[in-house]
Formats: sequence, C-alpha cells, structure tokens
Amino acid sequence: MAEHYLDNSATTVTCKAAAEKALHMMTVEYGNPSSLHKKGLSAELELERAREIVASSLSVDAEEVYFTSGSTESNNTVLFGVANAKKRSGNKIVTTAIEHSSIIDACNKLKSDGFEVVYLTPDKDGVVPFTAFEDAVDEKTILVAVMAVNNEVGAIMNIERIGKIVKRINPNAHFHCDAVQAYGKMLLKPKKWNVDTLSVSSHKVHGPKGVGALFVRKGVRITPLLYGGQQQKKMRPGTECAPLIAAFSEAVKEFDITANREYITELNCYLKAELTKLDGVTINSSESALPYVMNISVQGIKSETMLHHLEQDEIYVSSSSACSKGKKSYVLSAMGIDDKLIDSSLRISFSKYNNKDDIDAFINSLNKGIQTLAKVK
Amino acid sequence: MAEHYLDNSATTVTCKAAAEKALHMMTVEYGNPSSLHKKGLSAELELERAREIVASSLSVDAEEVYFTSGSTESNNTVLFGVANAKKRSGNKIVTTAIEHSSIIDACNKLKSDGFEVVYLTPDKDGVVPFTAFEDAVDEKTILVAVMAVNNEVGAIMNIERIGKIVKRINPNAHFHCDAVQAYGKMLLKPKKWNVDTLSVSSHKVHGPKGVGALFVRKGVRITPLLYGGQQQKKMRPGTECAPLIAAFSEAVKEFDITANREYITELNCYLKAELTKLDGVTINSSESALPYVMNISVQGIKSETMLHHLEQDEIYVSSSSACSKGKKSYVLSAMGIDDKLIDSSLRISFSKYNNKDDIDAFINSLNKGIQTLAKVK
Repeated sequence: MAEHYLDNSATTVTCKAAAEKALHMMTVEYGNPSSLHKKGLSAELELERAREIVASSLSVDAEEVYFTSGSTESNNTVLFGVANAKKRSGNKIVTTAIEHSSIIDACNKLKSDGFEVVYLTPDKDGVVPFTAFEDAVDEKTILVAVMAVNNEVGAIMNIERIGKIVKRINPNAHFHCDAVQAYGKMLLKPKKWNVDTLSVSSHKVHGPKGVGALFVRKGVRITPLLYGGQQQKKMRPGTECAPLIAAFSEAVKEFDITANREYITELNCYLKAELTKLDGVTINSSESALPYVMNISVQGIKSETMLHHLEQDEIYVSSSSACSKGKKSYVLSAMGIDDKLIDSSLRISFSKYNNKDDIDAFINSLNKGIQTLAKVK
Repeated sequence: MAEHYLDNSATTVTCKAAAEKALHMMTVEYGNPSSLHKKGLSAELELERAREIVASSLSVDAEEVYFTSGSTESNNTVLFGVANAKKRSGNKIVTTAIEHSSIIDACNKLKSDGFEVVYLTPDKDGVVPFTAFEDAVDEKTILVAVMAVNNEVGAIMNIERIGKIVKRINPNAHFHCDAVQAYGKMLLKPKKWNVDTLSVSSHKVHGPKGVGALFVRKGVRITPLLYGGQQQKKMRPGTECAPLIAAFSEAVKEFDITANREYITELNCYLKAELTKLDGVTINSSESALPYVMNISVQGIKSETMLHHLEQDEIYVSSSSACSKGKKSYVLSAMGIDDKLIDSSLRISFSKYNNKDDIDAFINSLNKGIQTLAKVK
C-alpha cells in the first residue's frame, strides 16, 4: 500500500540531496569546524557556505544568520534574550494567542517572571487585525512576536504591515517573527519588513530535524541563552552540527517558492472541491490562508478517531499541532470556532512531494470513515 | 595519502551503523515523534529505544535521560536550571578551573548575576585534590560541577569520591558531572556515585554532532532552559531530532569499554615510547591520565606551526580545546605548566579506529618538524 503523507506542517521527509550531504559530512567531512587543521577547516567552509545559502534565502547577510538546534531554541533565545537585554527600558511584551507553543510557553514563563504579556486575539480567519497591534503596542513595549503563518490553519499575518505599525509607535520595540511555517513557501524579507529577529526550521522544509536558523539583524543586542565556546560569535556556542547545517542548506537550495506555490494551490483547490462533495465537512482555514495547510472538521467524528481510521490506509494527517499531542487546539478556540468543530478537526498539510493521488486516497478514506465511523452527538 | 585522525577529543567520525541509522530515519522513518499517527509512533518508538540504550549505558532509568542538542546545552541547562531552582537556599557554586568552556562561561555568567563561584585549582597532574572540595563545599553551596575527564590532558577526577564528599558536607547541594570525555571510555555510575545530573555527547563517541544526553536523577528539580511543546516531560521541549538520537544510540550500542581501554592503552604506551626517543618533547599528561588523551609540548615550536606542519601529512591533532580555537590553554595554565610549554603544546587523542600506523606517521612527521621548523627561543 502506498503511503500518503499529508502532515507536512508537523515535519517533512528529508530530501535526497540533504540526507546525502548529512551522510557525507558524518562519515567523510567529519571534522570539528573549530579545529585549526584542514579537517576542521573543510567542515567550517561547509558551515559558512550553508550560512550564505540560508542568508540568501532570507535576503540578509551571512553574518546575521545563527544556527540553532531548531525553532524552539530560536524562539526561546529571542524571547528570553530580548526580555533580558531590554528589561530596563520596559516591561511589556505583545504577541498573539495563536503563536506556536515555543512562543506562548516562553511568554507564559516571562509573565510569571513579572513581564506584562498581551496575547492578541485573531478574527475568525485566524488573523490578528492591525488595529489590535495599534492598540496594544506602546512606549513600554520591548518586544512584539508574531508568526508569519499559523501552523494549524495556515492563516497569514502581514508581517510587513505589522512591522511598520510596531516601529511607528515604538522604534525601540524589538520585532520578532516566527517564520517556521512560512519559510520556503512565501518570500520573506525580514530586513525590508522591520523584523529584528526571525526563526526558521530545517525539518519543515525537507531538511533534517535538529537544526534551525535565527536571523538577528546587525546591531540588535540579545543576551545569549547558552554560554560556552567561541562558536557563532558566542551568540550560540557549542560545536556546530555541521552535517545537519550543511544538509539544511541543501534543502534550502531546492526552494522554488513560486512554482511550488502554484502547484500546491492547485492541490489545495482540488482538495477543497472534493471536500465539498462530502457530507458534514467544514473547512476551518480561510480562503486567504496559505494553500499548504487546510484545517477541516468532520461533523460528529472525533479527530483522533478519524486520524486512526485514515492511518489504516497509510494516510497521515494531524489532529492538531504535533507539539501539543492530542490537546484541544487553542488556535481554533481563539478563532472562535465551536467546540464541537474543534473536537473533530483535522489538519491536512502539503509538500511539493504530494500529488492528486494522495488527495484521492485521502478523500476515499475520509468518505469511508464518514459512512462507517460512529458519530458523536 | 592516508589520513591519520588523532583529534578524537575534538570530534569523532560517525560510525557506519549510526550514519546509516540517521539516513534511514531522515528518509523513511521521518515522522514527527509527537504525531499521533503510525508514522509518528514509529519515530517515537525509535526515540524511546534510544533512550533505553543510553540509559542502560549509564545504569540509569530511561525516564531519567533527556536528549539535548549537545553538551553545551546539557551543561547550561543544569547550571542555570539548578541556580534558578535553588537560589533561595544558597548562593555558592563550586567548580574547577579546568572545566569545559560550557561550564566555565556559564559559571562566569552566574557570577555576574550575583552568585559566588569558586573555581578550584588542580595539581600538576590536572586533578583537583579532595581536600579542595572539602574546604570549598559548605552549607551555602547549591551546586558542585566537576568533569569526569579533562578534555585537554585526560586527567581523571574521582567522581565517586567527590560525590561522597559533597553529599556528606551538604546533602542538598546538587552534584553535576560533565562526563563528555569519559563517556564510552570508562564505566560511569552516576546513581551510585551521588551524581544528580550528568552530561554526555554523541559526537565524541562516534555518534553524529548535534545531539547529547542529560541524565537527571529522579526527583531532582531543575528549571528548564527552553519552553514550548510537551516533549520530554517539558524538561526539553521541541521536536526531538529522532534521526540523530537513534543514530547516537547505535554508536552507544558499539561501546566496548574494557576492550577499547586495553587497546588504547597499548597505543598510548607505544606513542609514549616513541616520543621519548625524540629530542625536546615533554609529556604534559600525567601517568594517571585516561590513555585516550595525550598532551605534549615540543620545545621551541609553536603549537600552530607544528599543527600545520603535521596536517601536510594528513595528520590531525589539536593545539588546544577545539572550542577555544587558538587561545592559550587555561587548563595547562591552571596546572602550573610553564608558558613556553603551553605555547608549544599539542593534544593527541585516540579512538578505537586508530592504530600503530597513525602513531608511526605522527612520529615521523613530528620528528621531521622538529628537525626542520624554525625554533622560537
């Protein structure tokens, strides 16, 4: 039976070029990038080449890119690092109620440490209105953190316009963007958009798990999260995982944002058309959402029940964010979606490796589930 | 020309089994361990299997093992996490002057945050005397951090006896051991030795870079460094890099501490015997050091000069810790070694993949260097 992996917002398969690069670096170019000999130097060169590639994908300078263990670390580095560096100039942090848990939970920790944190509520499309930022950001605000694309519904935030609002009201406020779900799927221009720091992750873009990057605009000061060796200008010490970093950059080299966006939009439209033929399916993602993600609800059938039904046909979707494993979605809640719809929600998320066969298989199996699975009233 | 890699304390080649496992997990078992479907579950099973293997290698329970991005993160997690969790019960931290930079620099940061940090000085063999711990540890001490084996000279600290001293004087003091250079090379029994937390790293034991493990004894409370998803009991959130973790465990499965120790001791003795035939070579590592590491000085020839001479013959050694890239060794300084010897020091570090040919090549090239390179007075 063929596998139909439609859970690409949770994680993606590592592409061939990336996996082969990692293998090569582990077994041949395995030197420590900090070693002074040739074996170290060649690993360092791979590292710096990767930094250039990632920097170029974000239209920033290589010296503004730091590699981390992933976006949880990147996001935490910014939140705690900015709070620490700016605590004397203010106490207020503005974010949204639908950020990834690595933002929300770090903000909760900062709140318990005495910071004032405002979690802005999105509208029914999952988008926080600009007026909400205009009202919330003020002179006391030291940090604003907004995701570019929501992981559960694909809602797109206009980072450029939010950046303008933030800097107009308070030029000293730090503007952070969690771009994990947007990276490789839409053009990101952090420097043009007044973004001070921006997180991206390798394993969401067909690179390996365990590595991410953090853009830190030149001149921006952040207290580091980790202390140790001289690596990465002491902003992120520790032996760089050169194999993963180089592999990540191989995946980035394969980005073709425009062509993929067209292709995925086609898949998305096809899925939507097929879904409307079925009974009791609600689409929770808005028309304006990124086509890579579609959140739906199937009337009367609990998410987990349907998820396990689908997996019998080797169809893999998500019931919610992979990071919150089975918990009720706070994103859908914040969007004002009815509890019954939340309990039956599924997330389908595409990659360039998907095709119409995957959708046909999903629709067939979903339909079979709708016909046969016990309904909850 | 054959490569002679004698810099295994900096990093090691990833063994075949580990590299292949990583490749398989990246391209086949690529699910997110937190995903509820089979694809996630199979990654999670690999993760838990790896946790059992690492736990077993330390004679601890699987639930006491957390995976991190490496030992810099592991060490920082403990230092900041314990300081934070215990700051109400005391203010004093005891460590040694020859710890890895991820301990020293984190301690420096804690010192600047107001903690009292005592850096104990080693004797000429690189070993901190037990009496120094007896004098330094007191009722105010919240944390004692000691490495099991020093990375630059191989000096062995008797963690078992230090643990007894710490807990006898202050049972509430947290005892942390950085066992990165000891892991896989000597038997570690943290639970028997009164150790509360212990760090190990994958890339020093023929696993991939970018992953490490942290043992946290059951019942020990540490404030986490990172906040985010539900992963690893929220002690270390973020998508687990299942490919690296599984690969790491493959390397651990290949541990054969006793046989390797014998083999490496033989290589070490051979190297020592050959070195004594050369003019102007001093051995800085003590007789009691771990045989995997030998630190030497070559009279009148700067470390970097000799290192670059050796690399022309594809012989790779280190001038100092890879993490401090060219800076004067604070470890050798703390041991009271003369500055001239420090300036000409080299570290040779073995793995099970080395053999006498590597040593012969090194000795030949070293001798050639001694004959031909310009001497500094």
